[in-house]
Amino acid sequence: MRTALIAGFALTIAASSAPAQPASNPATPAPPAPAVTEDFKPSSLNQPGQAYPQVNSQGYVRFKVNAPDAKAVRATLGLGGRGGTVLTKQADGSWMGTSEGPLDEGFHYYHLNVDGGTFNDPGAQNFYGSIRWESGIEVPAHDADFYAVKDVPHGNVSQILFPSPSTGTHRRAFVYTPPGYDANLKQRYPVLYLQHGWGEDETAWSNQGHANLIMDNLIAAGKTRPFIIVMTYGMTNDARPGTLPSFDVKPFQTVLVNELIPYVDTHFRTLSDQKHRALAGLSMGGFETKAIAPANLDTFSHIGLFSGGSFSLDDVNKTPGFKDKVKLVFVSFGSRELEGGRARAPAGTPRPDPRVESDALKKAGYPSVFYVSQDTAHEFLSWRRSLREFAPLLFRE
Amino acid sequence: MRTALIAGFALTIAASSAPAQPASNPATPAPPAPAVTEDFKPSSLNQPGQAYPQVNSQGYVRFKVNAPDAKAVRATLGLGGRGGTVLTKQADGSWMGTSEGPLDEGFHYYHLNVDGGTFNDPGAQNFYGSIRWESGIEVPAHDADFYAVKDVPHGNVSQILFPSPSTGTHRRAFVYTPPGYDANLKQRYPVLYLQHGWGEDETAWSNQGHANLIMDNLIAAGKTRPFIIVMTYGMTNDARPGTLPSFDVKPFQTVLVNELIPYVDTHFRTLSDQKHRALAGLSMGGFETKAIAPANLDTFSHIGLFSGGSFSLDDVNKTPGFKDKVKLVFVSFGSRELEGGRARAPAGTPRPDPRVESDALKKAGYPSVFYVSQDTAHEFLSWRRSLREFAPLLFRE
Repeated sequence: MRTALIAGFALTIAASSAPAQPASNPATPAPPAPAVTEDFKPSSLNQPGQAYPQVNSQGYVRFKVNAPDAKAVRATLGLGGRGGTVLTKQADGSWMGTSEGPLDEGFHYYHLNVDGGTFNDPGAQNFYGSIRWESGIEVPAHDADFYAVKDVPHGNVSQILFPSPSTGTHRRAFVYTPPGYDANLKQRYPVLYLQHGWGEDETAWSNQGHANLIMDNLIAAGKTRPFIIVMTYGMTNDARPGTLPSFDVKPFQTVLVNELIPYVDTHFRTLSDQKHRALAGLSMGGFETKAIAPANLDTFSHIGLFSGGSFSLDDVNKTPGFKDKVKLVFVSFGSRELEGGRARAPAGTPRPDPRVESDALKKAGYPSVFYVSQDTAHEFLSWRRSLREFAPLLFRE
Repeated sequence: MRTALIAGFALTIAASSAPAQPASNPATPAPPAPAVTEDFKPSSLNQPGQAYPQVNSQGYVRFKVNAPDAKAVRATLGLGGRGGTVLTKQADGSWMGTSEGPLDEGFHYYHLNVDGGTFNDPGAQNFYGSIRWESGIEVPAHDADFYAVKDVPHGNVSQILFPSPSTGTHRRAFVYTPPGYDANLKQRYPVLYLQHGWGEDETAWSNQGHANLIMDNLIAAGKTRPFIIVMTYGMTNDARPGTLPSFDVKPFQTVLVNELIPYVDTHFRTLSDQKHRALAGLSMGGFETKAIAPANLDTFSHIGLFSGGSFSLDDVNKTPGFKDKVKLVFVSFGSRELEGGRARAPAGTPRPDPRVESDALKKAGYPSVFYVSQDTAHEFLSWRRSLREFAPLLFRE
């Protein structure tokens, strides 16, 4: 059983080979080029006081970088397949360029290529992705309100260091505790363990994902039960594309199930039974979830895969206890992944359609929910929205 | 009274004009050049999997950056006055260079200059200083054990968002809670409010300062009473050197005293009386402390200035209540600041000797403690050690 799941996990990764940070591919090739509206504003993710990069109301991005003696400067963000946005030298020694088309709404990773070297944009804040601290930019989303900082009670995000005998160190995790956690000392809370994607780490769901703000806003609106979220590093840095098929989920499973969960249940006021514990993840974190949750059904009852595969009827039928013990199977994707996803699968590789698989589960009586984030790709706005949809379905009694 | 203190605050800053991030100045010019030992290892602060920058056992730093088409690459770290370390192009298209001399032990900020532009080293992690996310490197200190991650109980560092009517937003702070905070639900704790320096922010004391690890280790060794530390942004980004004399501490004082402290006392199990609340800061955070604490002696009882000025006998004598209400005045500097500090004062500007001032306070019966961090400058190892010395002196009853 375990072997089968891990084999399936590796196969799915190999078939999709989709890291968490592809080049951003806007949907519409646009001949003739539309007029660019000159209402550019600094990205909300810029470093303090930095005017660039900028974004306009259409989603075009404009870069400006100072490097007076450089020969060539490029930003790895723009229309897919064209190597990003080429910047041109200005009279003042800076380099400027505007993306050839609008980008999808939401968060995008990028970096600069300066004279053949990889550097971050000194105007932008950094976010860990692609096994490096990348530059980040935010194209304002029409529905950004659900992760805005609002005048509502805010939970905390705590950095914890937990002992990990299996890896011989103390490891870091972040723990979201909902508003009221510090006041209601007799209340105990369910827990969602929430994993990042390939090349990211335990900072992603707070920094890029705004998981804490999504929860604060859902709770303030009465849309979800307050619960704890635990985010730790999924040990995915070594899973280079060439070695993905042999990635072994067991070391992380040991850290998660044998070390982190007992620590959290000891140090936070959790409801520590199976029915109050969920596991979810994005991209490779979804594949980890798909491997670990069914193999630990006495530990987890609610499962979420965000752009990270799906369960076939065969997967669940052959997993002992799945029908009785699993209370939710949530599968989501960005709509652009479903449009273009099949094209990325190597010729001859079977790639299951996640909607078909999720529908089959539902028809067979499993608690299956399928969600599509409209007009987003394999990027964080898909996953912010997935968490918004997933959270209200958890721990209903 | 308030006016006098703020004027003194501004004067002291103007006289020292010492931001938190000067070029690192090793003490010894070294003709003839010593032999460089070829035992370089990756800095402990490198990004995952990155081999460079490296540090050797003598404290020399070696940089390697890929930029095959660049004309000139320089790192802003090395011997003072020489513009840092000039990198030279290698056959493989990378650029390499070794500092001309050893650096002081501890943490150093730096960045690269690539063809006239300012970029971070893609091998190093980033730390907020100089109003930007800078590259950071760590030269292993002989006494690094006191901030090492050890197999001891660890406290948490929680990100909180607190409402700030005076600035019209929710502001971020980090709160260290000691080991046992989550278990001993009836215990209440004293609180230290701990401020960063100019151009830094609320992340500095955890990321660069390891305040949490210093406390974990002190508590495990029985050397300090467990207490809470609160770290927020001192609103110092706008205090450019030219505008320092007119920097107004009042907006930050309002956030700290009227907004943050009440929030912390409501949401954490604090001992909320004056004798269990301390204020300290490094560099410009010290100047803020020197301005705010004496003006709020019903709020703070213990005061720490780390490389951030000192109190004269005149300062304290003319402050109503100082003698009765202040239980500790701790002043510290790196030894290199005391060696070279006077040279930086503009000609004709009086610059008080902090040791003389602290001794005068002590002789007059004030609870004055002066500490010098040996062989360190205006950098974070001075302040890590200052916290190690300061913490055990707090909240003794």
